Amino acid sequence: MKTACGSMSCNEQDLSLHQSDQAMIDQAPEDDLQGDPFGHFYAIILSGGAGTRLWPLSRELSPKQILHLFGADSLIRQTIARLTKLVKEERIHIVTGQRLFDEIRNHLLTEFPPCRKVQYILEPAARNTAPAVALAAWQIAKQDPKAILGVFPSDHFITDDQPLLDAVRQAATAAKDGWLVTFGLQPERPETGFGYIERGEPLSPEPSLFRAARFIEKPDLETAKELVAAGRFFWNSGMFVFSARTLLEEVERFLPILSEVLGALDRYSPDERAQFAQQEFERIPPVSLDYGVMEKSERVAMIPVSLQWKDVGSLPALAEFHPKDSAENVAIGHIMQEGCRDSLLYSDSRLIAAIGLENMMVIDTPDATLVCPKERAQEVSRIVARLKEEKAPESVAQRYSHRPWGSYVELEKGSSYQVKHIEVYPGKRLSEQLHRHRSEHWIVLQGTAKVTIDTAEQIVQPNQSVYIPANAHHRLENVGKIPVHLIEVQNGEYLGEDDIVRFTDDFGR
Amino acid sequence: MKTACGSMSCNEQDLSLHQSDQAMIDQAPEDDLQGDPFGHFYAIILSGGAGTRLWPLSRELSPKQILHLFGADSLIRQTIARLTKLVKEERIHIVTGQRLFDEIRNHLLTEFPPCRKVQYILEPAARNTAPAVALAAWQIAKQDPKAILGVFPSDHFITDDQPLLDAVRQAATAAKDGWLVTFGLQPERPETGFGYIERGEPLSPEPSLFRAARFIEKPDLETAKELVAAGRFFWNSGMFVFSARTLLEEVERFLPILSEVLGALDRYSPDERAQFAQQEFERIPPVSLDYGVMEKSERVAMIPVSLQWKDVGSLPALAEFHPKDSAENVAIGHIMQEGCRDSLLYSDSRLIAAIGLENMMVIDTPDATLVCPKERAQEVSRIVARLKEEKAPESVAQRYSHRPWGSYVELEKGSSYQVKHIEVYPGKRLSEQLHRHRSEHWIVLQGTAKVTIDTAEQIVQPNQSVYIPANAHHRLENVGKIPVHLIEVQNGEYLGEDDIVRFTDDFGR
Repeated sequence: MKTACGSMSCNEQDLSLHQSDQAMIDQAPEDDLQGDPFGHFYAIILSGGAGTRLWPLSRELSPKQILHLFGADSLIRQTIARLTKLVKEERIHIVTGQRLFDEIRNHLLTEFPPCRKVQYILEPAARNTAPAVALAAWQIAKQDPKAILGVFPSDHFITDDQPLLDAVRQAATAAKDGWLVTFGLQPERPETGFGYIERGEPLSPEPSLFRAARFIEKPDLETAKELVAAGRFFWNSGMFVFSARTLLEEVERFLPILSEVLGALDRYSPDERAQFAQQEFERIPPVSLDYGVMEKSERVAMIPVSLQWKDVGSLPALAEFHPKDSAENVAIGHIMQEGCRDSLLYSDSRLIAAIGLENMMVIDTPDATLVCPKERAQEVSRIVARLKEEKAPESVAQRYSHRPWGSYVELEKGSSYQVKHIEVYPGKRLSEQLHRHRSEHWIVLQGTAKVTIDTAEQIVQPNQSVYIPANAHHRLENVGKIPVHLIEVQNGEYLGEDDIVRFTDDFGR
Repeated sequence: MKTACGSMSCNEQDLSLHQSDQAMIDQAPEDDLQGDPFGHFYAIILSGGAGTRLWPLSRELSPKQILHLFGADSLIRQTIARLTKLVKEERIHIVTGQRLFDEIRNHLLTEFPPCRKVQYILEPAARNTAPAVALAAWQIAKQDPKAILGVFPSDHFITDDQPLLDAVRQAATAAKDGWLVTFGLQPERPETGFGYIERGEPLSPEPSLFRAARFIEKPDLETAKELVAAGRFFWNSGMFVFSARTLLEEVERFLPILSEVLGALDRYSPDERAQFAQQEFERIPPVSLDYGVMEKSERVAMIPVSLQWKDVGSLPALAEFHPKDSAENVAIGHIMQEGCRDSLLYSDSRLIAAIGLENMMVIDTPDATLVCPKERAQEVSRIVARLKEEKAPESVAQRYSHRPWGSYVELEKGSSYQVKHIEVYPGKRLSEQLHRHRSEHWIVLQGTAKVTIDTAEQIVQPNQSVYIPANAHHRLENVGKIPVHLIEVQNGEYLGEDDIVRFTDDFGR
């Protein structure tokens, strides 16, 4: 057992799988838990999404699952909170890519209570969900060959957890028997934005477990109406439960290149693996778990579930989370409107004045505004594609960013300078760090900061400033009882966030 | 002559009439100019407008006449350039209010070539155009009792000056004979946004001078069509020529309170006048020159003029100054659109993404965005009224401001701090000044600044900073060949622009 964990820990390093602490090893399954399938249950949260459909609210580095727009907490934290009713936090694995990893971890560490024990599995390259889930299964199976995996999107909004949790428990039992279990949601309308699963014959002894007879991709409206009328078709929830072993067997059968790559990763020495993982992964044809495995396998079951469930797939869905006025408008933020109807008006901070809009949406963020009829919301993907082509910053990140120690907002950026407003929470400190290319001027606006430059410490108070030359070791700490606010003016030839050499960090980064 | 000028100069001080230099006195009319009416001609530019109809581009302190949106220069500078073909700059008087005076003067001094010799007449209180023009007539008549006045709006766009200048010359002759001359524009369409003047009998000996038979206020569409079809109705251009004496006589007849107030101002001693001008002016009922004098007087003539003329009365007019794409859209600034038609998309700096808009306008500025169907553009006045009621900063000023020495942009403002990006042109310097309530940190981003604090001078270069404590005399000068750019962080309990004590200033402020 120790040896297995030790070797998995090495593998993690190689594949950049991060563990926030030793909790997972301590929680490795014991044989005496074997009677309960939850002794071998692990949750996989898929969180690699590109965040294009909610642009300009979502960005490449601010995907919708970390936004605070849908309910009291972010969708990924709602998902984690739901799953911790089934398993300990350390049994929850977030699968994401290298670029998003920092943002998601910062988000989960920043929020209260912080999620310190969740695990991260980093895809060496983005290859859609089948490779992501197979990698997680391969990884977890090394630690626990009997692992039962629940796969969950990170961006679903569900108000009543219990029916889902019950269904997952039931699914875990079926998964032990070799089924790939899907969850069919009772369709509420002839929705064209989801795939459907046809319910087949019941699978005894579980009365509510059925064979999944057929998968149907997003239908047109006519077909959708027929499917709903027929009564035996369910929305494909995108959630799955299966054993790692069953999944890997089906992957071997239907996705031979993926299977071969996982085998190849096994054969590399740890040193080689670190070097070759990305290259190997890039060989894998991108394919979804639905299309690559579920639609082909004959071992797929379905459990119908009735859920208070929302797919936040496009901007107009945002309106469902906020109150409407008497003209069916939803106005969020600093809005002044005259004579609008059925419109969605959202502003981060600036004033939006809207006159006479009908069925429109105006989505305003500090660096970009979208104006569009609600029914054409899905066309925002074209805008995002053009922005990516132009390598425009508006496709990548928001101007604000959360950090475990606080947050910052970019006020202005030029080719050789940048101005930020930084907030540091009481008692928190940034990592000890240096920058190769940029100098920093800090002017404190509020609070009491302790600034260490090389070995010299000083207290900096409101209306005082301090200068940090390039290449100087420095550290910023809020030693007071209220947040520290400061303006940072950076000067340098290169201003990327990756010009940072970290020495010690309270947040394990 | 000397005495008269000297006493007028005192009056100017009392009524806050500013003279940028002694030019006006040097140019006082000589009797030997009497043969030419232009020896007594003065231009009055009305520039007190509230700037509400083009919001959010225009603001209380950024009225449309100083915006750079209509042609190669601002509308007020186009007006001045046109009038200097008739009179010297020092004979041009800009009538405005105390609040706008700084903005307009800064604008005229900042632009190239700067208008240094124009005169300013400040209304003690805003009372619409009749009191503004009567005050100017009263003021100028003290200097030159034979003064002939041309009154011009500051926000008209005219591409062919010559027909207007010819008509003004002709009008000056008629004005000497006691006529109040208006200019009727040949109507191009049944416009409901303008008033109309009915052409009466010809007034010999001038073949193109007619009696103005009737004034018609903005008509409805049916009436407008009838007026255009009738052929003898002309658009009221809002431009006038008359002698100061004739105007003041008619004011005495039709606007007795206004006349009485002007008389009262005469009776006050200079000291009392400074004190009582506002109070006196506030007694005057607000009334336009058209309604208060022109519609009532029997001495009104009209000269028909055919002009390439545009009234920039609402935001959609902006589209006429910019090229259209093949779908009749006008896109100004950082715009990305998909499938829009007949729309006006304007952005100061941020990205506007527009999908599927038809006949819409999106007007984006750093602190406010307007979204509205083009045909409802005039309803923006309701938004502005609500903003004023709320004393919202978005109704008052833009986030950027031009100064004779450069410009600044407000990046962020809190209750006790403010961050600005300041640009100082090569060779320019700000006034020697101090602030009672705020300290300033300057971090230079580009260029070479000379900073004087009390008696100590220092050179500050990029990536260097300097601290100016509250109550310290200081001065900033660009001693280099390229613009100085710096970030200013202000800390203080009071951050208003009026916390400034000026000692010496290159721009006479």
